[in-house]
Amino acid sequence: MTTGSKDRPDHPLERLIFFSDAVFAIAITLLIIDVHAPHVPLGSPDHDYIRALLNLTPNLFGFFVSFFVIGAFWAGHHRAFALAGHYSDSLNGPNLMMLCSVVFLPFSTSFMSQNIGTLVPVQLYNLSLITAGLLNIRLVRMVTAPPVVSEAVSADRIAIVRARGPAVVLGAFCAMLVAFWDPRFSQMALVTIPLWLRLLRAWTMRRLARAPG
Amino acid sequence: MTTGSKDRPDHPLERLIFFSDAVFAIAITLLIIDVHAPHVPLGSPDHDYIRALLNLTPNLFGFFVSFFVIGAFWAGHHRAFALAGHYSDSLNGPNLMMLCSVVFLPFSTSFMSQNIGTLVPVQLYNLSLITAGLLNIRLVRMVTAPPVVSEAVSADRIAIVRARGPAVVLGAFCAMLVAFWDPRFSQMALVTIPLWLRLLRAWTMRRLARAPG
Amino acid sequence: MTTGSKDRPDHPLERLIFFSDAVFAIAITLLIIDVHAPHVPLGSPDHDYIRALLNLTPNLFGFFVSFFVIGAFWAGHHRAFALAGHYSDSLNGPNLMMLCSVVFLPFSTSFMSQNIGTLVPVQLYNLSLITAGLLNIRLVRMVTAPPVVSEAVSADRIAIVRARGPAVVLGAFCAMLVAFWDPRFSQMALVTIPLWLRLLRAWTMRRLARAPG
Amino acid sequence: MTTGSKDRPDHPLERLIFFSDAVFAIAITLLIIDVHAPHVPLGSPDHDYIRALLNLTPNLFGFFVSFFVIGAFWAGHHRAFALAGHYSDSLNGPNLMMLCSVVFLPFSTSFMSQNIGTLVPVQLYNLSLITAGLLNIRLVRMVTAPPVVSEAVSADRIAIVRARGPAVVLGAFCAMLVAFWDPRFSQMALVTIPLWLRLLRAWTMRRLARAPG
Repeated sequence: MTTGSKDRPDHPLERLIFFSDAVFAIAITLLIIDVHAPHVPLGSPDHDYIRALLNLTPNLFGFFVSFFVIGAFWAGHHRAFALAGHYSDSLNGPNLMMLCSVVFLPFSTSFMSQNIGTLVPVQLYNLSLITAGLLNIRLVRMVTAPPVVSEAVSADRIAIVRARGPAVVLGAFCAMLVAFWDPRFSQMALVTIPLWLRLLRAWTMRRLARAPG
Repeated sequence: MTTGSKDRPDHPLERLIFFSDAVFAIAITLLIIDVHAPHVPLGSPDHDYIRALLNLTPNLFGFFVSFFVIGAFWAGHHRAFALAGHYSDSLNGPNLMMLCSVVFLPFSTSFMSQNIGTLVPVQLYNLSLITAGLLNIRLVRMVTAPPVVSEAVSADRIAIVRARGPAVVLGAFCAMLVAFWDPRFSQMALVTIPLWLRLLRAWTMRRLARAPG
Repeated sequence: MTTGSKDRPDHPLERLIFFSDAVFAIAITLLIIDVHAPHVPLGSPDHDYIRALLNLTPNLFGFFVSFFVIGAFWAGHHRAFALAGHYSDSLNGPNLMMLCSVVFLPFSTSFMSQNIGTLVPVQLYNLSLITAGLLNIRLVRMVTAPPVVSEAVSADRIAIVRARGPAVVLGAFCAMLVAFWDPRFSQMALVTIPLWLRLLRAWTMRRLARAPG
Repeated sequence: MTTGSKDRPDHPLERLIFFSDAVFAIAITLLIIDVHAPHVPLGSPDHDYIRALLNLTPNLFGFFVSFFVIGAFWAGHHRAFALAGHYSDSLNGPNLMMLCSVVFLPFSTSFMSQNIGTLVPVQLYNLSLITAGLLNIRLVRMVTAPPVVSEAVSADRIAIVRARGPAVVLGAFCAMLVAFWDPRFSQMALVTIPLWLRLLRAWTMRRLARAPG
């Protein structure tokens, strides 16, 4: 699907978007800083290097999962602000709060990776995802409502963009339930996020198709 | 409040704004780097993990306070430059000095968090806030005066934007006074910043309403 | 060669490009973080400092190679998106995956620099380059095809831009072969990347000249 | 002095500028990462904290000097590209090399700060400044010449912008000479950079005034 509109948003709105993009970009890149490259004594056999890498599996797994989670938050931010046309001072607070929860994710990822498979770090990670998800839902709601939303945007497109919001929250909630059963498998429940996205989208489409005009 | 102007500033001005946004974004995100995720020995009971997190309370508190302080500086920069229309070489020096004081904040935050509740680190933090606040006031004054300010901007809007400047300085000054009484409660005085903002705004509005034309 | 077009892409596309630029910029700058400046005891003779620097040679060599490799990926991204005119949601996934492979490079560089001249770290580095190269080829293909590519772009220009893609993959593949012979000389094979670029370009130009219309 | 032109450069040129801005912004902010906040045992008297801060003086001094040196490089890049109107692929290589020398500065700053007042680290720092300065001169020359420079720019403005280039090189060369006499005072010679800027500007202005037309 392509968006054909050539209209550009207000300049103050562009700057807000730009600042947010930079924060997302830094948070997503900082994830790799916590994966420290191991030093193996010179002259060790090859399988010592491979074992050193395998020991990093939880860190690398945490890196990849959080990379795509932050990427999904960025994509949602991008999708919502593509519908915005006007700047409002009231956006600053909720946007900063949402960014703060995203900047927190490299910390909760690192805490989880360094204490792999234990309850508290896993649940803190899930809780930080749910917090980011809820702050994101609030922000998307503001961006797709007057006075921020562009007049050219249809109610249907707004409904579709808003429908994406709960996916991360639902996925992280599943991960929380799994963690109480066994913390080691908690993160696998995050794989349900794309499923929730598809489900929420299909459900919204059906609802829109039924509604008149 | 929405700004309806579609006018875009000079390209060299846009680049100055852009560079500043990137510096703000990096400084605000670096704050989380100094909150090192604790490693707890495998097999420890859950409350050991919770205690490890609680030990981080000062670091996390410092992270959240500084995140919103830098966020407030960004919002002020954003508000002031939204009134600018023309680039001037004379902006570079004062803008760099203000950014330098913002980049310094992750250091003073970290010094305070690692030595929680002690006088010198707390006062260095307050001093760095006051410095950043004063450099910010100087910059905002330049941006909202000829030759930089856009001709379309009214004197009233300039007065309202300029009125915000002293809020951080006043809040940090209160924090300094509290620190001499007890350094542990110093940061709580920063919560007065939003109050100062509201007070300064109300006072400016009343002054403008009384003034003719 | 200059591009004369003044047309600007869609705003949502600009934001995708912008976010990618920021990620490239951070990944390329993070490379220097892993080169830790050595501390030499005060009063040591000058040649102790020089020896401390010489001990960093592998780290500095790794820094320079990876800097220009990431720079080359950025230049390729830049060249491809210069032909794009329309945003499509389907770009997000492949773009994030490519960025993820770029963000991974500071890690594989650091692993290689800390274990200089050993097989496993060198091959992991080569493998991470090949992965990034393949994900980049896929992305460039999407960007230079409908519905993303700008209608004003000729098939010949698309062919020339696409021709660049395999250069990094071929160079890293050579480095892999060299590594099996002697890991210490593996990185030198990456110097062939500019040669591959020139060869692929010449070969595409000849193919285009032969083709009718 | 304000620039009145509302003309915007090519989009591919904007992206090159943007990427460079982000790299400058990250390099300038990374400088603070190497200033580690000291931890003083709880209950120490106040002057222990002050002594811990005073021990950081070389690091803080290095931070401030390098902040304004990188800031000066950014300002020079900004000034030069404000005259550019067209993108050229040939800019990529020289621009990347200049950025590489800027990204290297946090390393040479850190090496100098950790080994304060010793010859080799101080000279490496001066050498890295000279390298960055020379790569910058080459880049500015390309940007202010066809096919990149905007047709609307006069030869006089080009001469004035180009005149700034040697200032950093001359300042760092002075610092190098001072270092051979006593490394502890080397950095103070960098304070001559603004003097060189003024001198070079005055000399260019006089030369332009004498020249016909």
